[in-house]
Amino acid sequence: LRNGYPEVIYCQGKDIGHIQQIVQDMLRRGNNILATRAEKDVYEAVKKICPEAEYHELARMITVKRKEVPVPDTYIAVVTGGTADIPVAEEAVVTAQMLGNKVERVYDVGVAGLHRLLGNLDIITSAKVIIAVAGMEGALASVVGGLVDKPVLAVPTSIGYGANFHGLAALLCMLNSCASGVAVMNIDNGFGAGYMASMINKL
Amino acid sequence: LRNGYPEVIYCQGKDIGHIQQIVQDMLRRGNNILATRAEKDVYEAVKKICPEAEYHELARMITVKRKEVPVPDTYIAVVTGGTADIPVAEEAVVTAQMLGNKVERVYDVGVAGLHRLLGNLDIITSAKVIIAVAGMEGALASVVGGLVDKPVLAVPTSIGYGANFHGLAALLCMLNSCASGVAVMNIDNGFGAGYMASMINKL
Amino acid sequence: LRNGYPEVIYCQGKDIGHIQQIVQDMLRRGNNILATRAEKDVYEAVKKICPEAEYHELARMITVKRKEVPVPDTYIAVVTGGTADIPVAEEAVVTAQMLGNKVERVYDVGVAGLHRLLGNLDIITSAKVIIAVAGMEGALASVVGGLVDKPVLAVPTSIGYGANFHGLAALLCMLNSCASGVAVMNIDNGFGAGYMASMINKL
Amino acid sequence: LRNGYPEVIYCQGKDIGHIQQIVQDMLRRGNNILATRAEKDVYEAVKKICPEAEYHELARMITVKRKEVPVPDTYIAVVTGGTADIPVAEEAVVTAQMLGNKVERVYDVGVAGLHRLLGNLDIITSAKVIIAVAGMEGALASVVGGLVDKPVLAVPTSIGYGANFHGLAALLCMLNSCASGVAVMNIDNGFGAGYMASMINKL
Amino acid sequence: LRNGYPEVIYCQGKDIGHIQQIVQDMLRRGNNILATRAEKDVYEAVKKICPEAEYHELARMITVKRKEVPVPDTYIAVVTGGTADIPVAEEAVVTAQMLGNKVERVYDVGVAGLHRLLGNLDIITSAKVIIAVAGMEGALASVVGGLVDKPVLAVPTSIGYGANFHGLAALLCMLNSCASGVAVMNIDNGFGAGYMASMINKL
Amino acid sequence: LRNGYPEVIYCQGKDIGHIQQIVQDMLRRGNNILATRAEKDVYEAVKKICPEAEYHELARMITVKRKEVPVPDTYIAVVTGGTADIPVAEEAVVTAQMLGNKVERVYDVGVAGLHRLLGNLDIITSAKVIIAVAGMEGALASVVGGLVDKPVLAVPTSIGYGANFHGLAALLCMLNSCASGVAVMNIDNGFGAGYMASMINKL
Amino acid sequence: LRNGYPEVIYCQGKDIGHIQQIVQDMLRRGNNILATRAEKDVYEAVKKICPEAEYHELARMITVKRKEVPVPDTYIAVVTGGTADIPVAEEAVVTAQMLGNKVERVYDVGVAGLHRLLGNLDIITSAKVIIAVAGMEGALASVVGGLVDKPVLAVPTSIGYGANFHGLAALLCMLNSCASGVAVMNIDNGFGAGYMASMINKL
Amino acid sequence: LRNGYPEVIYCQGKDIGHIQQIVQDMLRRGNNILATRAEKDVYEAVKKICPEAEYHELARMITVKRKEVPVPDTYIAVVTGGTADIPVAEEAVVTAQMLGNKVERVYDVGVAGLHRLLGNLDIITSAKVIIAVAGMEGALASVVGGLVDKPVLAVPTSIGYGANFHGLAALLCMLNSCASGVAVMNIDNGFGAGYMASMINKL
Ligand SMILES: Nc1ncnc2c1ncn2[C@@H]1O[C@H](COP(=O)(O)O)[C@@H](O)[C@H]1O
Ligand SMILES: Nc1ncnc2c1ncn2[C@@H]1O[C@H](COP(=O)(O)O)[C@@H](O)[C@H]1O
Ligand SMILES: Nc1ncnc2c1ncn2[C@@H]1O[C@H](COP(=O)(O)O)[C@@H](O)[C@H]1O
Ligand SMILES: Nc1ncnc2c1ncn2[C@@H]1O[C@H](COP(=O)(O)O)[C@@H](O)[C@H]1O
Ligand SMILES: [Mg+2]
Ligand SMILES: [Mg+2]
Ligand SMILES: [Mg+2]
Ligand SMILES: [Mg+2]
Ligand SMILES: [Mg+2]
Ligand SMILES: [Mg+2]
Ligand SMILES: [Mg+2]
Ligand SMILES: [Mg+2]
Repeated sequence: LRNGYPEVIYCQGKDIGHIQQIVQDMLRRGNNILATRAEKDVYEAVKKICPEAEYHELARMITVKRKEVPVPDTYIAVVTGGTADIPVAEEAVVTAQMLGNKVERVYDVGVAGLHRLLGNLDIITSAKVIIAVAGMEGALASVVGGLVDKPVLAVPTSIGYGANFHGLAALLCMLNSCASGVAVMNIDNGFGAGYMASMINKL
Repeated sequence: LRNGYPEVIYCQGKDIGHIQQIVQDMLRRGNNILATRAEKDVYEAVKKICPEAEYHELARMITVKRKEVPVPDTYIAVVTGGTADIPVAEEAVVTAQMLGNKVERVYDVGVAGLHRLLGNLDIITSAKVIIAVAGMEGALASVVGGLVDKPVLAVPTSIGYGANFHGLAALLCMLNSCASGVAVMNIDNGFGAGYMASMINKL
Repeated sequence: LRNGYPEVIYCQGKDIGHIQQIVQDMLRRGNNILATRAEKDVYEAVKKICPEAEYHELARMITVKRKEVPVPDTYIAVVTGGTADIPVAEEAVVTAQMLGNKVERVYDVGVAGLHRLLGNLDIITSAKVIIAVAGMEGALASVVGGLVDKPVLAVPTSIGYGANFHGLAALLCMLNSCASGVAVMNIDNGFGAGYMASMINKL
Repeated sequence: LRNGYPEVIYCQGKDIGHIQQIVQDMLRRGNNILATRAEKDVYEAVKKICPEAEYHELARMITVKRKEVPVPDTYIAVVTGGTADIPVAEEAVVTAQMLGNKVERVYDVGVAGLHRLLGNLDIITSAKVIIAVAGMEGALASVVGGLVDKPVLAVPTSIGYGANFHGLAALLCMLNSCASGVAVMNIDNGFGAGYMASMINKL
Repeated sequence: LRNGYPEVIYCQGKDIGHIQQIVQDMLRRGNNILATRAEKDVYEAVKKICPEAEYHELARMITVKRKEVPVPDTYIAVVTGGTADIPVAEEAVVTAQMLGNKVERVYDVGVAGLHRLLGNLDIITSAKVIIAVAGMEGALASVVGGLVDKPVLAVPTSIGYGANFHGLAALLCMLNSCASGVAVMNIDNGFGAGYMASMINKL
Repeated sequence: LRNGYPEVIYCQGKDIGHIQQIVQDMLRRGNNILATRAEKDVYEAVKKICPEAEYHELARMITVKRKEVPVPDTYIAVVTGGTADIPVAEEAVVTAQMLGNKVERVYDVGVAGLHRLLGNLDIITSAKVIIAVAGMEGALASVVGGLVDKPVLAVPTSIGYGANFHGLAALLCMLNSCASGVAVMNIDNGFGAGYMASMINKL
Repeated sequence: LRNGYPEVIYCQGKDIGHIQQIVQDMLRRGNNILATRAEKDVYEAVKKICPEAEYHELARMITVKRKEVPVPDTYIAVVTGGTADIPVAEEAVVTAQMLGNKVERVYDVGVAGLHRLLGNLDIITSAKVIIAVAGMEGALASVVGGLVDKPVLAVPTSIGYGANFHGLAALLCMLNSCASGVAVMNIDNGFGAGYMASMINKL
Repeated sequence: LRNGYPEVIYCQGKDIGHIQQIVQDMLRRGNNILATRAEKDVYEAVKKICPEAEYHELARMITVKRKEVPVPDTYIAVVTGGTADIPVAEEAVVTAQMLGNKVERVYDVGVAGLHRLLGNLDIITSAKVIIAVAGMEGALASVVGGLVDKPVLAVPTSIGYGANFHGLAALLCMLNSCASGVAVMNIDNGFGAGYMASMINKL
């Protein structure tokens, strides 16, 4: 196990008793803990055996911080197209913070209101790496990638309906970006984006 | 048949002799003619039986103009993301012109170079209706739709590779546009966009 | 913000408290309000803080009218294939009306009973722009487009089962229409069709 | 082997020598022969060993008639949407004729020109069974099925481009037909439609 | 409306009050009634306003018989691969009976137990037309089509899991049948198969 | 490298010079060689540097046998639906033989002519493991799996057209087989089936 | 019925009364019973009429053992990528054991922690046949197939989200394995894998 | 334009005259040039107007170096699964080198021969960022991501056949990687991977 790095639990589909037991083991090893896709009842159960556990409601995450992690001066910018994309963005934010990174949020700046994006360009451009989270057509990643000369991790979300096909539209859009410097994560994979951005931010 | 409107031949998959015969019939009826998806050899054959036929190489179209069509003062803006999208755009342009419309071209202003789009916003905004032609991820339609308060006809092109799936990525992107006022044509259907834009421009 | 135009909330996936707060902000700015995909309980909550809010049950929409919008003499025809398509059609109707348009409804005139469509051709032909809403195979848009010389906005619905794939069949049918003058919206996107039709009706 | 019925060869992908040999065997057994998807050079080769072989160019079929087959008084109507669908329709026609059926052709009556279909309704309605062949959006089968009270065998063709996906659009359209009495064959399967229609016509 | 034919209601997605009202109208016109996809609570509601309504639990159908329909001597065979396909098969059976047809059921004779099919070949071969209902891989239709010289209407069901994709596997299997004389209905469309089989049985 | 086992080259997409060089290296190591997807010109080139190389035209394979491989008494049965599936079947046959196995071929016994399969059941049942190769709808694997109590390796082929989607129909059919004891290889992967069958035959 | 082999019930979608009745019949015939996809309430109902029925909670299976089945000395290794794949793996394990096989479990050894797989290579290599169960990207089957010279039955699971498409990603990965000796089962088909592995283990 | 960075031409689908003209313009501006997807005849034409142009045959790229670009001490590792993936890998290599980066190649180390990968782990682990290029099932990216604690840019290639669907299998595999620190490029997008890796290597 990598020093200071949290141990991670993916809660979806696991029953609460099982999760409690995994947490117990992790606590014994003295590591930081990060639990993703955790509903509130999972948190209540974890809190009983670990009172200092914190809940991040929007991100649906539980964190337990036992050890300090060094934090570089540079930061990660997390950008979203709409407000509905925020849960996925927050999963990235909490993951990155827990791994020892400063994060700047720039939310709800999608292409339907391009001026809001242009008005925040400074904070985005000054980041070391950018996470662009968008559902619907997912055009945000291309627009950010075209404006900014930094690596962009694009996260399609499953927000949308009809010919969105649960995020497929945004995923394909991002994979086909004609802007250079854009790489793509799985649909709704905020955790993966936060992890990868942390790797890059700490290079 | 609607007065002054050209008769249309879709040449793809038809053999040259058959096309010559169709043109002969149309000439007899005295109408304007518009032939789409016509390679150069089709043009040579048509020219033999109709010397005033004109060829539009980029658009791969043949036109024969026998009757004048009234042209309104307003115009249609045709916008493309890249240079590879120009053949589809030109199919729309020639169709619209043949149906009696003024057209303004704004080419190669895709999201990878957003400044070129912003620098041409005036000419786009002043159009009565806009045709946005884009391949790769197709984000152009959303960006134009978000900036401009006019109806946008989005035409995905089959330009791209890999997870582009011959235009599917751009098609889905455009159908899911979070900008209001965007309707979508079939992949590579420049003719249809030019026809529909003409209908709207003449309302 | 464009003068007289309503501010729009897409309610699906937002929690009621959040919606109330958005409405509060909008009311403060004095604008008209349009909320889509709003179940009855959302309406009850909005009514509490805004007693003049109206609910459109079939369309699942809430409207608040504070300012008058100018209404042109021309009208939009909204046509459906079946009765199951009516909710999507009504979303288009309420949107168009709220944006200041006259609307004529021609419902349940799908291809399985073509005579009903032919019997209503007058009212459809006299519209400035037509919205054709259909699920199952979506053939209505092609049939209307073939009969009428006005721009048709085709809205596939997710009504159907089996190889319908939640509206994909109707979507592909409409995109491939061999009638000229048909452009396509996302599956179930009545709002978008109403918005675009309003743009065209007001040109 | 069913009495009087032809033996059938599907030529696509078979080499000419192999086809000659199969034909030789069939001739020895004294049966009628039907070869589908046969290019002209295949015909030339077959003609060498069987001079009475006939070629049906549009249908890309070879037939050899050795025995008479009884022909009922009723007939099969074969309807197409466009002219590009005719090869598939002719495959059905030649198959049905070879199996001992009268056929009436009603070609190029698709939904983009509905009046041509309505003008031919009599001949369609009086058939015992109808084959409806259409590419693009494939709406023809629904329209015919809605107008006529006879079994309709719908054959989608691969004619189209873009979001047609080689006939998928027409296939899905036909499978989702809201008209009753429509059953569907594989894309471009004119042979299968002719065979099934013959079965029904002879009941 | 065609004489003696029932009026049909597709209940899925309609609310009970609406269905009661449709039934009331139909009763007033004195016709037979057929309601498909009707859960038990729909039946209870219909029974209140029409005590002679009958419920077919397996088929999830309601029937009201007011007029007699002539019944030919020939019959329709309805064959299923498994027991899970029976609801779809029963939808076909009740539809066909209500339209005035004799039906023979041959259930649970799929390819995993081919001897059961071979043991029932007589009753299948003697039918005028066969409905083959199968989920999973849908091979039943090909096997029946290969053994029997009668028209086969193949109905894929949504029974299955994983790479079955809700009936897509069976649908594609049936469309690609290498046996002649097989036409395909939409996934789970027992009603359509019963209707088409009745048309053919009465020719 | 496993003793006696051939070294394998997948020729598709490799240029001839490169293949010659790979063969040279393999010859130096003294091993048996198996080259798949090799057109005749590849064979000519290989023959020049290795005169004892043999070509298997139907299988499109080259073999070089330097060392003897032990051959068990049991055998592998290779069954095909049609004659068009034979190249894939032969790839399996030559692979299995080269790996030291007896093979029995049972070709062209698909479901459209079930009696041919039933007439060969003995030879299939007595095999230790069966390879079932089929295109179109791929029902053969289910039928064999239902009749025989031996492991069946199912190989879908890309033979077919339209809704076959280059082998997808047969692949899905085989994956959803309701017969027990069927496992599936990639489309057209005769080599893989021969390799796996050899493994099983030698257990 | 094959001697000693259990009779199998697939419980999903069957109602409890129906299952009880099927079990009653099987008990009368005196055979072993295997019920798959059985929730706990199904077990309670079966226990009432058959007190010696056992429940396998993880595998969601019910077994009734009346007759002994011979067990060979060789064993089947069942390997999983993650803990979420264990239910599918256990379905394979219980099936194989019930059919008379020894099984060794090697769970949670996926590619994200390759050292755990390498640390267990001995027990995997010594098996007669291997079942590799994995969701997410499904790379486990390729890795095992590349390391071990035994037949591998690959079972993709539906574990994953986003572009996993309910197991499609793992299914495609396994079908395209560049390791030789890998054959694939349907998504989540633990039963089929256990059955096929038993067949091979007993050769 | 970013200082020292080359100007890029995507040659596919552009005619040679057009490319010559673009190059002429770029030369006038004095920048470095990078042309991708350039066949040999394109190179010959470019060489005529720019004799110092270099051709990279495997990568199908043309480069013209006019200005020096600073090169950091750290390097990028480019890893491939098979030899058929090398052209895509070389596109990444040449792009990265042209942008001023050291590159280490580790080719043909896919999961079918895992020992070759393990034997090269040192050179991979010491890179600042890794590009993993793989076709077939694409498992390489997961395996590398699981072994190494550096950012991995995964590039699926279109190498494969059957259920590979032109790279879709590898793409989905990589998007679903259960190893952390893997982001994905479009199928065959070596250029994009080289560009993004350069960005990261220079942070
Ligand atoms: N490029 C095009 N894309 C879509 N539809 C077209 C195109 N060109 C022509 N058409 C339509 O095709 C019809 C002519 O088809 P055809 O009778 O086959 O020549 C015209 O009436 C147009 O509506
Ligand atoms: N189960 C079914 N599947 C497909 N079509 C149906 C079904 N039941 C009824 N229909 C068709 O739906 C029409 C009635 O639809 P509706 O007016 O929505 O109740 C009938 O005329 C039938 O053609
Ligand atoms: N027809 C085939 N289909 C799938 N895999 C094959 C085929 N032929 C050879 N292979 C595999 O490809 C490997 C050789 O690939 P290569 O090194 O590219 O020549 C062999 O080890 C086999 O495992
Ligand atoms: N192989 C490639 N794949 C994806 N994008 C590329 C590739 N080669 C060049 N590009 C991009 O395409 C742009 C040039 O496109 P164009 O103007 O059409 O030549 C460059 O700025 C690159 O961002
Ligand atoms: Mg950028
Ligand atoms: Mg706009
Ligand atoms: Mg029209
Ligand atoms: Mg009808
Ligand atoms: Mg038959
Ligand atoms: Mg079996
Ligand atoms: Mg192996
Ligand atoms: Mg890693």
